[in-house]
Amino acid sequence: MVDVNPDLQLSLDLVGVFVFGLSGALVAVRRGLDLVGIVVLAWMAGLGGGMMRDVMIGAIPPVGISDWRLITAAALSALLVFALHGVLRDPDVPRRGLRRGLITRMVLVLDAVGLAAFAVTGSLKALQFGMPGLAAVIVGAISAVGGGLIRDLLAGQVPEVLRRELYAIPAVVGAVSVVLAHHLGYLDEWVLYGSAILVFVIRIVAVTLNLNAPQALRTGDH
Amino acid sequence: MVDVNPDLQLSLDLVGVFVFGLSGALVAVRRGLDLVGIVVLAWMAGLGGGMMRDVMIGAIPPVGISDWRLITAAALSALLVFALHGVLRDPDVPRRGLRRGLITRMVLVLDAVGLAAFAVTGSLKALQFGMPGLAAVIVGAISAVGGGLIRDLLAGQVPEVLRRELYAIPAVVGAVSVVLAHHLGYLDEWVLYGSAILVFVIRIVAVTLNLNAPQALRTGDH
Amino acid sequence: MVDVNPDLQLSLDLVGVFVFGLSGALVAVRRGLDLVGIVVLAWMAGLGGGMMRDVMIGAIPPVGISDWRLITAAALSALLVFALHGVLRDPDVPRRGLRRGLITRMVLVLDAVGLAAFAVTGSLKALQFGMPGLAAVIVGAISAVGGGLIRDLLAGQVPEVLRRELYAIPAVVGAVSVVLAHHLGYLDEWVLYGSAILVFVIRIVAVTLNLNAPQALRTGDH
Repeated sequence: MVDVNPDLQLSLDLVGVFVFGLSGALVAVRRGLDLVGIVVLAWMAGLGGGMMRDVMIGAIPPVGISDWRLITAAALSALLVFALHGVLRDPDVPRRGLRRGLITRMVLVLDAVGLAAFAVTGSLKALQFGMPGLAAVIVGAISAVGGGLIRDLLAGQVPEVLRRELYAIPAVVGAVSVVLAHHLGYLDEWVLYGSAILVFVIRIVAVTLNLNAPQALRTGDH
Repeated sequence: MVDVNPDLQLSLDLVGVFVFGLSGALVAVRRGLDLVGIVVLAWMAGLGGGMMRDVMIGAIPPVGISDWRLITAAALSALLVFALHGVLRDPDVPRRGLRRGLITRMVLVLDAVGLAAFAVTGSLKALQFGMPGLAAVIVGAISAVGGGLIRDLLAGQVPEVLRRELYAIPAVVGAVSVVLAHHLGYLDEWVLYGSAILVFVIRIVAVTLNLNAPQALRTGDH
Repeated sequence: MVDVNPDLQLSLDLVGVFVFGLSGALVAVRRGLDLVGIVVLAWMAGLGGGMMRDVMIGAIPPVGISDWRLITAAALSALLVFALHGVLRDPDVPRRGLRRGLITRMVLVLDAVGLAAFAVTGSLKALQFGMPGLAAVIVGAISAVGGGLIRDLLAGQVPEVLRRELYAIPAVVGAVSVVLAHHLGYLDEWVLYGSAILVFVIRIVAVTLNLNAPQALRTGDH
């Protein structure tokens, strides 16, 4: 049995849904979509990864259509972006440009929080549904990057997870950490906290140092 | 138990598959796809929403791969478009241009019919599979807009449901109406008819008056 | 019972995953994606069709997240492309341009091998999970073309299966052949080999003769 404080698991999920929901809503606004589009993209970004996870591990119905707490978190993120966007984007007020720089950095940090939260809860839920270790790692990674991937597909852009600085790799590291701890028999809340912090730190370091996975095009130089 | 005349349910599904199939086939022709592409897009547009629904509520196998009646309806819509398209698009005959205006309006009306049919049958099937109310509403909406969303993704365009005049909202209203009637204990055929007509009317009014959900970009003016 | 040598089934699947993995990795390199993007696209191209199949027939968890042999095959295809790409693409050495022509033709042949392998094993697995005949045919076709479709969606291009010379049709023919043999009661290894060879030959002939399914735009001439 994988026995973890369900409140911790729910809290991490709520945080992940909310911050990824913000990212989906912001992409929708940038593409000129209306309120329905903003809500739909926030919902897919926040809950799409978890829905892929649930369909693959047989957790029917997926939380993305059935858990009102998570759905409310996604809806709130959409409404928040909708309500504040005029303020945040107004191009006539230079001081707001300064504030926008702050917003961009905040979103990056929040996005790293969501990545960390979903990598941990995704692999945890896969273990709870009896998945073997490899599957739990992959499911954790999919939970973490899936929402952003669907968001980008719907918005008509090549998914950022395929291009950006180390994004999938910290998620895989966090999921491996959870699954290893489970197989070694000492999975507890501190492992979950530690794994999430590990994902967060790797991701933030990668963004700060502009680290990327190597590209094949450069291999000609070696 | 959710007990409804299965013939009515099937009829609504057949209508929805056929009209969404037409929309998928027309998009395929416009993108210069061959007969296989036309059939695939008609199938995905007509049955993709129902397949998402079935995977999420655990109705395995999904009707989109197993119900020959619905698959035949999608195939017929593809063949109809394939056969008639040369006639409908011939640019040398002005009177046909007139007829094309009629076709476009017919497709809009038929599309509203499909939206109404799938919102109702989608939420109904979710209830029949024991989904809670919120899930049944979301599943109904996904059934109604999912096919068009996949169609647009495959054709390489931002899904119209994210941009167009009120499209998802009437679907949600219809699904809420079905689910509410179920929870109040008086779900019958008349509620289904009434809900479908409600979706249809809202959608047609939205198209006629060119109504849209509000956009975030305009919030700066308020 | 559908009783077939499981080693043959696994071998065909390994071949299919590896060659489609190569195609996904090559598309990723062409789009300038980094190593993570290459691995993800190889994995989706090689295993995405099988994951759609498994979700639709209720084979949970799908092999794409749980079978380490298939996942290793996809990873190897990604690493191979990553390692060799600089050599294969170097534009300064004309003789390598010659070799690249060879590579392109090899990929076409390998892709036809993958199409043949997945059409056969996809419909076979659907039968093993008790799907009716029509569903098994469609599932076989989805297994064969689904990975390439996801690959193209993620890379931001209209899926080649919707445009190219006869691509889905040989897959359908192979799946029909497997399902027919099953219903007539003489499904054995030779039928599987024969069906795979049939798919391969039709596909290669179509590529060689540049055959395409008919297009609707030409119907005006008839």
